[in-house]
Amino acid sequence: MAAFRPAVGAEAEFLDELLEHGLLVDMGAPGVYGRGAVFEEVRVGFDALVTRIAAADGSEALRFPPLMPRHHLESTGYLGTFPHLAGTIFAFEGSDGDAVEQAERACRHEDWSAHQAMTELALVPAACYPVYPAIAARGPLPAGGVTIDAGASYVFRSEPSGDPARLQMFHQREIVRIGEPATVTGWRDTWRDRALDVLRRVGLAAEVDVASDPFFGRPGRMLAATQRAQQLKFEVTIPIASPQPTAVASFNYHQDHFAQTFGIALAGGEPAHTACLGFGLERITLGLLRCHGLAPQRWPAGVREELWGT
Amino acid sequence: MAAFRPAVGAEAEFLDELLEHGLLVDMGAPGVYGRGAVFEEVRVGFDALVTRIAAADGSEALRFPPLMPRHHLESTGYLGTFPHLAGTIFAFEGSDGDAVEQAERACRHEDWSAHQAMTELALVPAACYPVYPAIAARGPLPAGGVTIDAGASYVFRSEPSGDPARLQMFHQREIVRIGEPATVTGWRDTWRDRALDVLRRVGLAAEVDVASDPFFGRPGRMLAATQRAQQLKFEVTIPIASPQPTAVASFNYHQDHFAQTFGIALAGGEPAHTACLGFGLERITLGLLRCHGLAPQRWPAGVREELWGT
Repeated sequence: MAAFRPAVGAEAEFLDELLEHGLLVDMGAPGVYGRGAVFEEVRVGFDALVTRIAAADGSEALRFPPLMPRHHLESTGYLGTFPHLAGTIFAFEGSDGDAVEQAERACRHEDWSAHQAMTELALVPAACYPVYPAIAARGPLPAGGVTIDAGASYVFRSEPSGDPARLQMFHQREIVRIGEPATVTGWRDTWRDRALDVLRRVGLAAEVDVASDPFFGRPGRMLAATQRAQQLKFEVTIPIASPQPTAVASFNYHQDHFAQTFGIALAGGEPAHTACLGFGLERITLGLLRCHGLAPQRWPAGVREELWGT
Repeated sequence: MAAFRPAVGAEAEFLDELLEHGLLVDMGAPGVYGRGAVFEEVRVGFDALVTRIAAADGSEALRFPPLMPRHHLESTGYLGTFPHLAGTIFAFEGSDGDAVEQAERACRHEDWSAHQAMTELALVPAACYPVYPAIAARGPLPAGGVTIDAGASYVFRSEPSGDPARLQMFHQREIVRIGEPATVTGWRDTWRDRALDVLRRVGLAAEVDVASDPFFGRPGRMLAATQRAQQLKFEVTIPIASPQPTAVASFNYHQDHFAQTFGIALAGGEPAHTACLGFGLERITLGLLRCHGLAPQRWPAGVREELWGT
């Protein structure tokens, strides 16, 4: 099991405050919380604001469940770069007798893992992952490529933590652009600027910077350096409760990685390029609650107007 | 891995039709599909209709992610009665060298399950499961008990099938009533009647009947008989594409099972009783599409009015 990462700075105090006021609900595992009505009101409000901003882009809406075929996770190389974050689904495979033994061990809270076998399913690690094989299956792209709005989808990261902003299961609001390289990078940069703007409009001290993914192990450090040098990833950060600002949105250019993996071709046959953006909805919600207080009805009128039009 | 259950009757033909018209999106695993904009419009429309009907009840809204602590799954006895349906989360636990070996096996699509270890998390098997420990943690119930609207939550069942109405990952819209026995059973019966009424109002040939859960193995048959004899479970069925009508909503009286397991007490200290209702939102969406056709803009005006107020 992944090592627990203890809270630092004001993280533990903020988590306690959120639990005490019912914004989050303890479920007995770090980074996996229920959400009260106020938390959801803010999260859904920001999600709807992104939808209004995205409306002009003429994207196609697709929605995916939080599970995907393990086969696709294997194909993307995710296990090479993020082995520590992936989650796979196991299930029972056995006889009536095995089921009895499993149940007996389980009800005594003993180890029953030997009765569970790997299924063909894995947890979705980023909301854009199911988009690429789905678009590849359609054949060559139309002229101009496609923009897919994958909505707000639950994604998993195996990283138990005492920081309420580091959840194991959270909503990524993702949009994906697939097309020619210049189209895709232009779209990515436009959204980076839009994100900075909208987060500032709701009162958050947002900043943008070149970033890298949390690649695993020693080879990961070289991957991260290359990613930064090529400016493939930008992140927008805001202050929440950690000593350092927290990334709440990312803007990623994958070059032809996903298109080559799944076989997404431009109308002319050359491999497409892809980019995606993701808003971490729980982190933005936490940032708003931390900045403006736990009672949205008392937030500044301008912020309320942006989120709920009231 | 659970055995694949092939399609029967018109199930395969209906699934093909849904995929061809983009209402569902193939992801490469049976029972795990993406959803196009039209499918989502119908699903969300029905969910909102349930919200309007429920508004008078004065429930408290709580939302839970599709994962919960494995410990709670163990405590409820779920592994005794539904071992074949449960899903658990495994993740990597190892050295840099193990990670390299895992990635190499994975990218060749070979077995890498030996590198995955059981985590403390499991997939939520029914949307009401996270509600009971959360309410127990608050201490004794207020007078009159509580009603919790758990919203539309993704739940998992390990049962790959060719029937589009038998998904492995789908949305249950659940509401839970916790209180005195008579309060709880009265509420359950009211909702059973409301469900029958609302499903008929949107044009579906809904019927209600006493039902039982798909308990595992030979002892399961006795449990099912007892459940029916005591009328603990009702189901509302509608025709979709299977030879027999499909259950799309269930109304379950748990007596004191969950209250005893998690320690939910009435104001006076006696164990509470619980009941829940669940609407299978994808099944209802499929039933509407099968009954009225794949183009909601051409559905009868009365049905459109109920779902979207237009």
